[in-house]
Amino acid sequence: MRIDIISVLPELLESPLGHSIMKRAQNKGLLEVHVHHLRQWAVNEYGQVDDYQYGGGAGMVMMCEPLANAIDSLSKDRRYDEIIYMTPDGQRFEQKIANRLSLKENLLIICGHYKGIDQRIRDHYVTMEISIGDYVLSGGELAAAVVVDAVGRLLPGVLNDETSALTDSFQDDLLAPPVYTRPADFRGWKVPDILLSGDLKKVDEWRYEEALKRTIERRPDMQQE
Amino acid sequence: MRIDIISVLPELLESPLGHSIMKRAQNKGLLEVHVHHLRQWAVNEYGQVDDYQYGGGAGMVMMCEPLANAIDSLSKDRRYDEIIYMTPDGQRFEQKIANRLSLKENLLIICGHYKGIDQRIRDHYVTMEISIGDYVLSGGELAAAVVVDAVGRLLPGVLNDETSALTDSFQDDLLAPPVYTRPADFRGWKVPDILLSGDLKKVDEWRYEEALKRTIERRPDMQQE
Repeated sequence: MRIDIISVLPELLESPLGHSIMKRAQNKGLLEVHVHHLRQWAVNEYGQVDDYQYGGGAGMVMMCEPLANAIDSLSKDRRYDEIIYMTPDGQRFEQKIANRLSLKENLLIICGHYKGIDQRIRDHYVTMEISIGDYVLSGGELAAAVVVDAVGRLLPGVLNDETSALTDSFQDDLLAPPVYTRPADFRGWKVPDILLSGDLKKVDEWRYEEALKRTIERRPDMQQE
Repeated sequence: MRIDIISVLPELLESPLGHSIMKRAQNKGLLEVHVHHLRQWAVNEYGQVDDYQYGGGAGMVMMCEPLANAIDSLSKDRRYDEIIYMTPDGQRFEQKIANRLSLKENLLIICGHYKGIDQRIRDHYVTMEISIGDYVLSGGELAAAVVVDAVGRLLPGVLNDETSALTDSFQDDLLAPPVYTRPADFRGWKVPDILLSGDLKKVDEWRYEEALKRTIERRPDMQQE
């Protein structure tokens, strides 16, 4: 899979993409991520990519021309399955979307900044608008990193133990059950006996019950969907 | 405000915290972020901080002792208003929580990794569990960066133009209206006339109508809450 990202702050993405599982995915050749600085396509020698908004008001808007030129130029080399704009008013990102995106070949992600991008780019170029949650961030870069991480770890071969992702929260519409590790007694706080019993069938039942209980307590909405 | 973060991958947080608005917030002395490597509190000379989970199954669990020692040690120097664990089964992060956290003085954030942290730390130390959305990430680091960014930008003086954050999506239970900037005509795609009219009252009305329309279309749930 290949992901291209257009950003005015590519340096912000360096460490999230350069370590841990995302680094491994790229080293193994399973994921290619290219971050492009929007200023390459600036409208003038000062590197301008944003301007005041029509109608007045606080905050700058990212201009049509640099974005249109960036997308046109990158699209010459490959066909993108989706041109994604990270925005708080987009469709809410969730595990099912991550699963679906992990089956694509080429994704292009546009990181907004300031007040956002000119609406005409959203109308004429963007094919998918994603929000990682109901909160506002300084820019789309962290949101893009979240999407790349959530999608990238699902690519076959990226996680060391492939069964691991299948038992995560959300993959079966249940939250994950509680987990414990050594020691069995820490400051008098004990691990549930059943986990020490060695009876794998009972452990599985307990985990399912706990997952169900936690989901009903914390996220009754997940069970109703 | 001061935020301490406990992580097994502190390097992943370098660039999100070291650039742009988060950098400015720290340079201005409005926000202090300290990332602590959990291995400082490892249980042995090999730096062990995780172990197999009781009851079997894929994925490692972060052990009680290093985390308990880390929290105890950091808590000697200051009283934390919240000890936050980033986890997909936590309370969903949203703008109201960001607003509330931005009024605190000291936050401690624990980044989970692998299958998560031992349940006993959640039961006995953690005061708040936060999920940034219904999807699974490789670890809690990006989630912590999202919280720090969403909270940090609300601190008075961090954003250049303070009115800017108030017109963001979610602050008034409405999504933001469309934005446009120069040129008025780009490839035949035109900016709505009203934004060029110079009539600020009409512009305000149009923006409110558009924000309402967009919210009803995209997020009818926001209006009902």
